[in-house]
Amino acid sequence: MGLVTPRTLSGFKDRLPKEALAKTYLLNKLSAVFMNFGFVPIETPHLEYADVLVKQGSDEIQKELYRFKDHGGRDVALRFDLTVPLARFVSQYKNEVDLPFKRFAIGNVFRGERAQRGRYREFTQCDFDFIGSDSISCDAEILQVIYASFVGLGIDEFTIWLNHRSILNGICEHCGVLGQKEINIALRIIDKLDKIGKENVGAELQRDLSLSSTQVDNLLEYTSIKQQGDSQSFFQEVSFMAEWNDSLKKGLDDLKALYEVLAPLQMDRDTYRVNFSIARGLGYYTGIVYESTLNALKSIGSVCSGGRYDNLTHTFSKTKMSGVGASIGIDRLLAALEELEILHKKATSARALIVCMDKTYFGYAHTLAESFRRSKVPIEVYPEISKLKKQFSYAHTKGHEFVIVIGENEFSTKTLTLKNMTSGMQIDNISFLKALTLIQEEEEEEMKI
Amino acid sequence: MGLVTPRTLSGFKDRLPKEALAKTYLLNKLSAVFMNFGFVPIETPHLEYADVLVKQGSDEIQKELYRFKDHGGRDVALRFDLTVPLARFVSQYKNEVDLPFKRFAIGNVFRGERAQRGRYREFTQCDFDFIGSDSISCDAEILQVIYASFVGLGIDEFTIWLNHRSILNGICEHCGVLGQKEINIALRIIDKLDKIGKENVGAELQRDLSLSSTQVDNLLEYTSIKQQGDSQSFFQEVSFMAEWNDSLKKGLDDLKALYEVLAPLQMDRDTYRVNFSIARGLGYYTGIVYESTLNALKSIGSVCSGGRYDNLTHTFSKTKMSGVGASIGIDRLLAALEELEILHKKATSARALIVCMDKTYFGYAHTLAESFRRSKVPIEVYPEISKLKKQFSYAHTKGHEFVIVIGENEFSTKTLTLKNMTSGMQIDNISFLKALTLIQEEEEEEMKI
Repeated sequence: MGLVTPRTLSGFKDRLPKEALAKTYLLNKLSAVFMNFGFVPIETPHLEYADVLVKQGSDEIQKELYRFKDHGGRDVALRFDLTVPLARFVSQYKNEVDLPFKRFAIGNVFRGERAQRGRYREFTQCDFDFIGSDSISCDAEILQVIYASFVGLGIDEFTIWLNHRSILNGICEHCGVLGQKEINIALRIIDKLDKIGKENVGAELQRDLSLSSTQVDNLLEYTSIKQQGDSQSFFQEVSFMAEWNDSLKKGLDDLKALYEVLAPLQMDRDTYRVNFSIARGLGYYTGIVYESTLNALKSIGSVCSGGRYDNLTHTFSKTKMSGVGASIGIDRLLAALEELEILHKKATSARALIVCMDKTYFGYAHTLAESFRRSKVPIEVYPEISKLKKQFSYAHTKGHEFVIVIGENEFSTKTLTLKNMTSGMQIDNISFLKALTLIQEEEEEEMKI
Repeated sequence: MGLVTPRTLSGFKDRLPKEALAKTYLLNKLSAVFMNFGFVPIETPHLEYADVLVKQGSDEIQKELYRFKDHGGRDVALRFDLTVPLARFVSQYKNEVDLPFKRFAIGNVFRGERAQRGRYREFTQCDFDFIGSDSISCDAEILQVIYASFVGLGIDEFTIWLNHRSILNGICEHCGVLGQKEINIALRIIDKLDKIGKENVGAELQRDLSLSSTQVDNLLEYTSIKQQGDSQSFFQEVSFMAEWNDSLKKGLDDLKALYEVLAPLQMDRDTYRVNFSIARGLGYYTGIVYESTLNALKSIGSVCSGGRYDNLTHTFSKTKMSGVGASIGIDRLLAALEELEILHKKATSARALIVCMDKTYFGYAHTLAESFRRSKVPIEVYPEISKLKKQFSYAHTKGHEFVIVIGENEFSTKTLTLKNMTSGMQIDNISFLKALTLIQEEEEEEMKI
């Protein structure tokens, strides 16, 4: 019988323990933040009827869909995001789900796009949405969740950039870019401002929309406006734009209302700022939109984006369902946290490893381990009797902070020998309680996401 | 444009918040137990090359495979369990993964079997394995993890039934059932002892293996042996069987060695007992095997099963890789916990809901919410201004324990009105700190998995 070569599909990825542990800590932390705000999980299948998924998807996504016939000849596909299943879910259970409805979902989605560095065909999405209310209180809460997520992950320096689709529409209107199609083209180009710079954006605007150079200059000038100082001065500075048209007035009023709700909170004012260039999700978002960047790693782009939409369920129902939500790019965030060195960097979840010099000590070793676990110290017992050197090397590779050795003397006196793997210090024949104190004192200072 | 009917595929399932929350708490608890023992998560894709999956699968599983051609014409399939991907993983990363290797995996798997009540085509598996060591210390640790999982979930009354494949082989041999094929047929029938009873098992043994009635009686007698009292008496009682053949001697010796490691631990002795009828995973398990039942719900069968195997990676490598592991049936366990009434039964993760009588109070409401969250009280702000009756009904349906009302008086005096949704008691115009104390005092007694 021939052997099968163990391999993964191109564009698909395994996660080894170190990376999978970091991801587990990250997702646990995020879920805890969401649940603290009363967001609840829901679960939908990975596989759906293809027509449930494709109607709402863009043409590009249709091409990337993993679509096939199942055993019953049904036309099925793997989900490509968590938003379409959410729309299907709230339409299907409209009688069971009390509005307003706050849900989060963390799950894998599939897109058969051309494989390229850093892009995977199966990847994890993390979405949270507040559905069924137009209140600014929801927008304010989504922003608080983003804020609490970053702070919870140990990220101090970040910026949530805010804008409003009506502001963009109003600027376009004022500059003579009329018609939704033209506006969308303009916004898609302006969205690249941070990536390709003013000059290239200007050239593209001129080329694709045949605008005059004055029009282009105006568009660039107004969409380049960013809040620098406090919000009150900012809204005063741009108040003249509210006079231009209803769109601009509406957008600025909404942002001001948002800032009023946020004002008394203990959120660092510097972390959220208005930026008229943020466009996001053409044709989907209709109100306040946002992107978030890490100040120390601006180049990686937005790690959390979202906004308000007014018709989530249009594929499934004639009743409009509005909401506001955001999505955290888990893979991008993990990469960023690794670069910022605030990631759990070990291949084990245990702080200590117990090694035995003889197999008759296993019972004692497991009793010790049991006591450590009751005192909230994750610990494991090395299951083989082998050379100490090999066992220490195992602990070193996996990242245990301590090794506990049980030899003849330790076994007979019901003590243990404790070695601190960082300092190299070893203390012989101490009691369990003494060891526990030493281990607890060394409780890792470094962030454990 | 026609509307799409929102629906799921037959055999696939959505989870509404109440159920999804309970599942989230359950999986968080289990992960914490696994990590406490130094088991680390790994992640493999949902989609694999079909030949990676099918070679190891049984014929039945091949028929149930969701298999199709991807965009590049590759023959791909959705995973049907987490064991084959594990075997692929440890073969592929044999140089990166330090042995012994302890991993857990919680993930969805897919089987296109005929849809029937309580069986789904996509379901969640939860596996933990200790690979690359034959030491009895590993078997002991897997049992401790099962024990800690049940205790952690608030289940007091459970039994882990232990057996050894060599004991079953030895009994068959002694009764004159020879040849692995015959033994496997016999074991498959004996495995149904608890379900269909002695009489039916006897009839099937006679029919399928043409055994004499003495042979059948002997087989039934020996496989019906269960440990009733303490282990020492038990092993003494069955010691005569060790004389029959090497298989029986080996099986009993291994179980005795396991009990020696477990003896000094603070595990309730009644929770693990030898049972010679447990067969499990024919052709896969080769050593100690186990099943776990809930004493109050024996009828639902085993909620956690596993055992020792000697050749995990035979599809991928000529090098044998042994290990021991177990699998928790998440859906079955959730159903059991619901029946035992030890499940989180609410549609919200928040303990309290803040409602405002006017939208100018939202800033104050969110400030209060922020303070409660800092004091570890999950809380949410109702985003609309509506009738109190509607808001109380929302809190009642979702399961909030408290409603906090902010009216004109509360807003101007920076106080709040607190209503206990269980007792109905309402206290007007109290301070944040007073409310916090009252909420903390009422910290739910009921188990929150």
